[in-house]
Amino acid sequence: MTSGKIRILISNDDGIYSPGIYALYRELKKIGDVFVVAPDSEKSAVGHAITLSNPLRVFPFKRNGKFFGYAVTGTPADCVKIAHWAILNGQKIDLLVSGINHGSNTGINVIYSGTASAATEGTILGIPSFAISVATYDPVDFTFAARFARKLAHVVLKNGLPPETFLNVNVPPVAESEIKGVEITRQGKAVFAEEFDRRVDPTGRTYYWLTGKKVHLEREGDDTDDQAILQNKISITPIHYDMTNYTFLDKLRTWKISV
Amino acid sequence: MTSGKIRILISNDDGIYSPGIYALYRELKKIGDVFVVAPDSEKSAVGHAITLSNPLRVFPFKRNGKFFGYAVTGTPADCVKIAHWAILNGQKIDLLVSGINHGSNTGINVIYSGTASAATEGTILGIPSFAISVATYDPVDFTFAARFARKLAHVVLKNGLPPETFLNVNVPPVAESEIKGVEITRQGKAVFAEEFDRRVDPTGRTYYWLTGKKVHLEREGDDTDDQAILQNKISITPIHYDMTNYTFLDKLRTWKISV
Repeated sequence: MTSGKIRILISNDDGIYSPGIYALYRELKKIGDVFVVAPDSEKSAVGHAITLSNPLRVFPFKRNGKFFGYAVTGTPADCVKIAHWAILNGQKIDLLVSGINHGSNTGINVIYSGTASAATEGTILGIPSFAISVATYDPVDFTFAARFARKLAHVVLKNGLPPETFLNVNVPPVAESEIKGVEITRQGKAVFAEEFDRRVDPTGRTYYWLTGKKVHLEREGDDTDDQAILQNKISITPIHYDMTNYTFLDKLRTWKISV
Repeated sequence: MTSGKIRILISNDDGIYSPGIYALYRELKKIGDVFVVAPDSEKSAVGHAITLSNPLRVFPFKRNGKFFGYAVTGTPADCVKIAHWAILNGQKIDLLVSGINHGSNTGINVIYSGTASAATEGTILGIPSFAISVATYDPVDFTFAARFARKLAHVVLKNGLPPETFLNVNVPPVAESEIKGVEITRQGKAVFAEEFDRRVDPTGRTYYWLTGKKVHLEREGDDTDDQAILQNKISITPIHYDMTNYTFLDKLRTWKISV
């Protein structure tokens, strides 16, 4: 390991096999020493889960015949914790990047996102962190998003981030020439119109699949993540994990709830 | 079902078998029609996970030979979604209560909490919601916490809650006579000093257990959930799921990040 080089930890929720994490790795190793610790399989929509009731296992993982990183039998949050406390034994990490996720992490999706949870764990450990996603479930080329991640890495390393805060980045799924810039956004209010598709299995038993369609509740031009993506802009939202609704605290105190 | 009665949905993350959900059920059925939809097994620290890549199954569940509710092969968030969209077919619910959890959901634990995620899902669906936990992992009597839940149910039904906001309630694990009142709090900054206990299994392979000890970063008298519990007060924190760090938005805009 070259001394003086910046040290970057990468994780994700699509799993260590995914093309998104590989694209990110190839860009970020141009600027530092990169450590990859990621789930051994896809963990989308795991939320901020940690594994308490099962042991975790860690396996070295190769790509193209060369050591690439460690695969962990756990969630994205588990990966960051075990990377810091066990694999890197508390050695200093300068930056954590989670991604590149295949699929948007905007609006209400932020609370379900394993990609965001890895960045949150980095933040808890005091590591400047960002999560990056390409906002489509269609086949995608991660090259541009990976290059933007490298650029943003420099910005974050230079400026630092406030306590308890990471950046949640979403990149529109369009050609680079169609990207209309970068917008600093807030987490949107898009929700899902959900349905459960009720089916009967071959043995006659009922089961349900969750399905849903995103409903945008904002108007065009609102400064939200989803509206930025719809305008082909990269959205960057500062996310913190203090979920207290401070504006409601004083009102709630006037209710004078007693035992 | 009696028309005009209030309709209450109950879920949790300790599972439908747990004593905490039963204590809650017995108290809340005194004030309304209660629907229990809860995980078929313990789902602690699942965070805000939803099940997308597996189907869900729903089973009627009995207690003492009588129908008690529905057990779902999913997470707390899945339970609330499937209760609303499939089991209750969108019928109006007046209140959602998640718990009573066995173990505290304070400080950083809020982001890992399945109990909180059920209340978040209720909130997303527009249902006034609260989560309630008894702050100990030792054996516990839920009677007092259940009674307090009933009292709080009346308060929430009367006042309503702001958009996107639920109440996260923690009850100290002491005798009722030692409870020092109710405090409206913010989510504390307690974190974990974590370790991974490295072991070798009977076949010679390494595995890791996550362990950790909560570290309180606040001072006595701070208005946080954990400090309230340490003072034998019931803590009530308003939690919202817009995780934007608004105070950092303007600063971040000055960085002028470009493509």
